[in-house]
Amino acid sequence: MGNLDTAQRCADAMMANDRSSQAMGISIEIPEAGKAIARMLVRDDMVNGFDVIHGGLTFALADTAFAFACNAYDDLTVAASANIEFLRPATLGDELTATATEDYRGRRSGYYAVEVHNQRGELIALFRGRSASTGDPVMRPQK
Amino acid sequence: MGNLDTAQRCADAMMANDRSSQAMGISIEIPEAGKAIARMLVRDDMVNGFDVIHGGLTFALADTAFAFACNAYDDLTVAASANIEFLRPATLGDELTATATEDYRGRRSGYYAVEVHNQRGELIALFRGRSASTGDPVMRPQK
Amino acid sequence: MGNLDTAQRCADAMMANDRSSQAMGISIEIPEAGKAIARMLVRDDMVNGFDVIHGGLTFALADTAFAFACNAYDDLTVAASANIEFLRPATLGDELTATATEDYRGRRSGYYAVEVHNQRGELIALFRGRSASTGDPVMRPQK
Amino acid sequence: MGNLDTAQRCADAMMANDRSSQAMGISIEIPEAGKAIARMLVRDDMVNGFDVIHGGLTFALADTAFAFACNAYDDLTVAASANIEFLRPATLGDELTATATEDYRGRRSGYYAVEVHNQRGELIALFRGRSASTGDPVMRPQK
Repeated sequence: MGNLDTAQRCADAMMANDRSSQAMGISIEIPEAGKAIARMLVRDDMVNGFDVIHGGLTFALADTAFAFACNAYDDLTVAASANIEFLRPATLGDELTATATEDYRGRRSGYYAVEVHNQRGELIALFRGRSASTGDPVMRPQK
Repeated sequence: MGNLDTAQRCADAMMANDRSSQAMGISIEIPEAGKAIARMLVRDDMVNGFDVIHGGLTFALADTAFAFACNAYDDLTVAASANIEFLRPATLGDELTATATEDYRGRRSGYYAVEVHNQRGELIALFRGRSASTGDPVMRPQK
Repeated sequence: MGNLDTAQRCADAMMANDRSSQAMGISIEIPEAGKAIARMLVRDDMVNGFDVIHGGLTFALADTAFAFACNAYDDLTVAASANIEFLRPATLGDELTATATEDYRGRRSGYYAVEVHNQRGELIALFRGRSASTGDPVMRPQK
Repeated sequence: MGNLDTAQRCADAMMANDRSSQAMGISIEIPEAGKAIARMLVRDDMVNGFDVIHGGLTFALADTAFAFACNAYDDLTVAASANIEFLRPATLGDELTATATEDYRGRRSGYYAVEVHNQRGELIALFRGRSASTGDPVMRPQK
C-alpha cells in the first residue's frame, strides 16, 4: 500500500510547520505507513483545577496520531469527523502515548482507530477518525 | 430544572482553576442553566503549516462549552464521550464561538449538542457530548 | 431551501418501493422539507426474550426518518454514517415516533438529528446521521 | 478473561428467545469469548426500491454480533450507544458476515468493533458499540 520512506518524509514535512503540535510538546514516531505513534507529557497548562487533563487535549493528541497515520501516502488528507470515548482520567505529569492504526482506506475516505495509554499501560481513551482526501500532495512546497 | 445563579457560580468555580482553558484564551458566557457559550481566537500557536487550526483545538473549544453547560447544577460531571464533524476549516485570526445546548439530562448521563461558528456566522463544526455525573458537587472547596 | 410539495412527492416515490420500511410497518409524515416523522409499533417479531425491542430496529426506525428528511430536495442522498444513544428500552406494544430535523445541509453532506419517543413522550434514543448526496434525482423512473 | 463454554451457553440462552434475530434469519457463531460472528442473507423484504438493503438492517446485523460478543461472561449487558460508517451498499442476495471483537472491557462498560463484509470479502460497514452491564446474569431462568 504505502512505503515507510514516503510516510516518514510526509511526517517530517507536516511536523516542520505544525506549530500547534509543537506547542503541545507532541513527538511523533512512524513505525510503518498507515500507523503513527504520538507522545505527550501532561503539563501544568493542560489541566483543570483537579489536575485532570482537559479532554480536548487528550483528543488533540489522538487527533495528531490520526493525522500522521492518514497522511502517509503523500495524498493530503484532513479529519472529517471523529469520536472519542474517555475511559480513565489522565493527570498532571502523565506520559500519554497515542497509537493510530488504519482500519480501512478507500479512494476518498479512510478510517482510523487510535488508542491512548498512560505510562502504566492503562487505556485512557478510544478514538476513531474518518479522513477525507483533498487530492493535494503532502510534500508540496510550503510557505 | 436549574437556575442561572447556580449555573453562573458553578462556571466561576470551574474557570478559576481551569489553567487549560485559560491557556487557550477561552472566555465563557452562561446565558441560562444548561447552556454555555465559549469563545476563542485562533492564535499563531494553534495552527499548522497551512494556517489551519489543529482540529484538536476546535474540539477543545467545543468540549469546554459542553463542560460548562453540563456543570450548571452543582453536580460535577465529566465528559464520557464525544463526536465531532468538521465542516469547514478555521484559520489564523478567526474568532470562534461554541454554543452548547442540552438535548437531554438523565440521572447519571446528559447529552449536549455544540455548534461552532466563525465570525462570519459560518458553521465550522458540529459536536455532540455525553456527560457522566460523578455525584460530587462542583463548588466543593478546591485546593 | 426546499418546498413541501417536492418533499412530499419524494417521500411518496421512496415509500412506494421501500419494502423494508413496509415490512417493519413504518408510516411516514412530512411536516416540512428537511423534516420527517416515522412511526412504528413494536411487534412480537421485533423483540428479544425480555420483550425488549432489538436495538437495530430502533435504529432502523430512526434511520428511516433520517432518510425521508434528507431526501426532500429531489437529490438522492444515502446514509454515510450514524450514531445512536440508547436512553431507555422500548418494549412489546410500544408506539415509537422518530422525528428527524436538519442541523446543516451542505453541497455534498447533510447532518440530521433524530429523537425517538415512546407513546408516553419519553425519550428512547438520540440518533445523528450524516447523509451523502449521490447527484441523482429521487424521483427518477424506477423499475 | 472468559471461557468459550460459558460464552456458548450464554449465546444459546440469548438466541433461544430472540425472535427479532430469528425473524431476520441471523445465525450466530462464537469462536471465542468476547468475539462473535453473525451472518444474514439480504432478503427481498430487507431492501428498498433500488434493491439496496435498508441501512437499519445492516446496523441490526452488526448490533446482533455486538450483543453476542459482549454477553459472553454471563453478565447481562445492553447496548448503550453505537456508531456505524456505511462504506459500500449491500444488495439483494448478498450474504453478509458481521465479526465483532472486544476492544476493551471495564467493570461497567465495554467497547466493541464490528466489521461487516459481503460474500466477496468487501468491507460494507464499520460499527463501534459501547455496552453497559446490568448486573444480572444472562442465563437466568426466562419466561
